[in-house]
Amino acid sequence: MKTVVTTGEIVVEIMATRIGQTFLEPGPLVGPFPSGAPAIFIDQVGRLGQPCGMISSVGADDFGTINLERLAGSGVDVSAIAVHQGAATGSAFVRYAPDGSRAFVFNIVNSACGLMAMNEAAEALIARADHIHVMGSSLFSTSAIAVMQTAVDRIQARGGTVSFDPNIRPELLAGSMREALEWVAARCDLFLPSGAELFLFTKARDEDGAVAELLAAGRSAVVVKKGGQGAVFYDAGGRTAVPAFHVEEVDPTGAGDCFGAGFVCAWLRGDAPSDALRLANACGALAVTAKGPMEGTRFRSDIDAFIAAQAEVAA
Amino acid sequence: MKTVVTTGEIVVEIMATRIGQTFLEPGPLVGPFPSGAPAIFIDQVGRLGQPCGMISSVGADDFGTINLERLAGSGVDVSAIAVHQGAATGSAFVRYAPDGSRAFVFNIVNSACGLMAMNEAAEALIARADHIHVMGSSLFSTSAIAVMQTAVDRIQARGGTVSFDPNIRPELLAGSMREALEWVAARCDLFLPSGAELFLFTKARDEDGAVAELLAAGRSAVVVKKGGQGAVFYDAGGRTAVPAFHVEEVDPTGAGDCFGAGFVCAWLRGDAPSDALRLANACGALAVTAKGPMEGTRFRSDIDAFIAAQAEVAA
Repeated sequence: MKTVVTTGEIVVEIMATRIGQTFLEPGPLVGPFPSGAPAIFIDQVGRLGQPCGMISSVGADDFGTINLERLAGSGVDVSAIAVHQGAATGSAFVRYAPDGSRAFVFNIVNSACGLMAMNEAAEALIARADHIHVMGSSLFSTSAIAVMQTAVDRIQARGGTVSFDPNIRPELLAGSMREALEWVAARCDLFLPSGAELFLFTKARDEDGAVAELLAAGRSAVVVKKGGQGAVFYDAGGRTAVPAFHVEEVDPTGAGDCFGAGFVCAWLRGDAPSDALRLANACGALAVTAKGPMEGTRFRSDIDAFIAAQAEVAA
Repeated sequence: MKTVVTTGEIVVEIMATRIGQTFLEPGPLVGPFPSGAPAIFIDQVGRLGQPCGMISSVGADDFGTINLERLAGSGVDVSAIAVHQGAATGSAFVRYAPDGSRAFVFNIVNSACGLMAMNEAAEALIARADHIHVMGSSLFSTSAIAVMQTAVDRIQARGGTVSFDPNIRPELLAGSMREALEWVAARCDLFLPSGAELFLFTKARDEDGAVAELLAAGRSAVVVKKGGQGAVFYDAGGRTAVPAFHVEEVDPTGAGDCFGAGFVCAWLRGDAPSDALRLANACGALAVTAKGPMEGTRFRSDIDAFIAAQAEVAA
C-alpha cells in the first residue's frame, strides 16, 4: 500500500456554541478539538487504513498532546511532528453566523506551526512517502512553503504523486503565498478544487473549459467538489459524476478535508472513479454529522457500513 | 490626581467550566474574558477613578478589541496599547483542579504581547505618569523587560514612584527574568508580595526580619498580602494589619491584582495605611465574587457601598 504524507498546520479549535455569538464578550465555548485542515485530512487517511504521516510542529502543551494522541490513535505516523518547548500550539476560534457562515480568530503563523522546518524525522518520512497531499491553507509562511516544496520535489523525483486541495483562505491570496499556490497547482497530479477554486489557475471561466485547460497543462485528473451536489471526476478518459449522500449537517468543518482523504486513498489504490467518488462522498457526508472539526472522521468499517446502508435506502 | 501606568501582558482568558476538566479532550469552556495581570490591575485603577494608562500590545483581532473596549470603558488610557496586524492577541486557558489549584496553557511570549516596544505613544504616556506599577508576570521577554525598565527609569528620574507586585510564575524564575525581578525589587518604593514572595529578595526567612531588611534597603513600604487573612502594611512608622472581608469565593483570579490597585490608588492619595488596606481588601474581596479574571473589578461607588455594608454587619 502506498504511503501518504501531508505538511502543514496543526491547531486546536475552540467553537462558540451559540449561533450568532461574538468574540467581543464572554460566552459558552467548547474545545479544545484537534484540528487543522491537513491534520483532519491525514486523520481520515489513517482511519481508512492507508499508511500515512504528517510533517508539522506543535507546542509542548496540552494542545499539542491532544493532537498527537488523536493522530497516533488514528494510525498516523507522528514522528515528523516536532514538539517545541516555549512555543504555543496553534489555535483557531470559530463562531457561526445565523446564515451558516463561519468567522475565525487564528493563531497559526506565530504559533508552533511557524517553526515547521525540515529535519531528520521529516526527511525520513518523506523518504517513505509515495504521495503528498498539499492544502492551500498550509502555505501560511515561507518556512511552511519551503517544507512543502522540498517534500513535493523529493517525492516527485522518486516517481511519487501529488494531490492539491486549494482550500483557500482569502488572506493567503497575496505575495509569496499566491506564488506557492501556483507552484503546486502547476505540479500536482490530482487537483481537488471546491466551487470557484476550479478557476483559480485557469483562463477559462466555465467548468468544461477550465477542466480541459488543467488536463492540457499536465494534471492527470481534476475532482470538482460540489458539497451537497456531490462531486465530478475528470481525466483524459472522460467525466464521472456521483451525487452526494444526504445527511443532517451538524458542523460543516472538515467535510472537504475528509472528502479529499477518501478520494486520494481510493485513487492510490486504483479504484474506478465512481468508486473513489463514492468513498470520498461518504467521508465528506459523515464528517458533517459530528460537532468538531475532526470528530466526523470515521474508520473504514464505519464508512463501508454507511455506504451499504445508503445503497439499501436507495434500492 | 496622580497618573498611574503599568506595562505588560494583555490576554484573553478561556476558562474550563467543570472542576477537574482537562485540556486533553473537548469540554465546556467559557470566554473570551479580557485578562492579563497588569490589565486587571489597571482596569481596577481606572474604575477607582484614578487617571491611568497601560503600555502593551494586542493583535488586530476580536481578542484585542474585547480588551481595548473593556479598558477604555473603565477609564484606562489605551493610547499606548499597540494593535499589531498579523499578530494574535495573547491567550491563557485555565482549568481548575478539585483542590482549587489552577493550571494554564499560555500563549504570551509569541503573541502580540511579544511585540511590546517603546514607541511615541508609550513615551507620551510615560511623560504623563506619576507612578508605575510593575508585575512580575509582565517580565516575560527581553523586550517586555526593556519597556518596563525604560518606564521605571524615566518616571523615577522625574520624581515619580514605583510599586512592585512579584506575582511570580515559576517559569520566570530563571536567567534574565530573575535579574529583572531583582532590578525592580531594588528600585521600587512600594513592595506588595503575597505569602512567600516576601522572602524572594531577602536573607531573612521570618516576616519581621524580611520587612526590616527591605525597609533598610530603601523600600518606603511593604504590604504583605495574606488572602483570606487580610493584609499587613509596614513602613518606617510601624505596622498596620487589617483583616480581610469575608465573601463567597467564585473565582480567585485577579484578587491580588485588584488588591494592588486599591492599595496603590489610596497610597498615592495619601490615605492612612488602615484606610488604604481597607480599600485594597474590598477590591480583592469583590474580585473573587465574579467568574472571570476582570469581571470582579468594580467602580468606586460599588466598592464604597460594599465597605459601608460590611461596616454595618460588623457593628
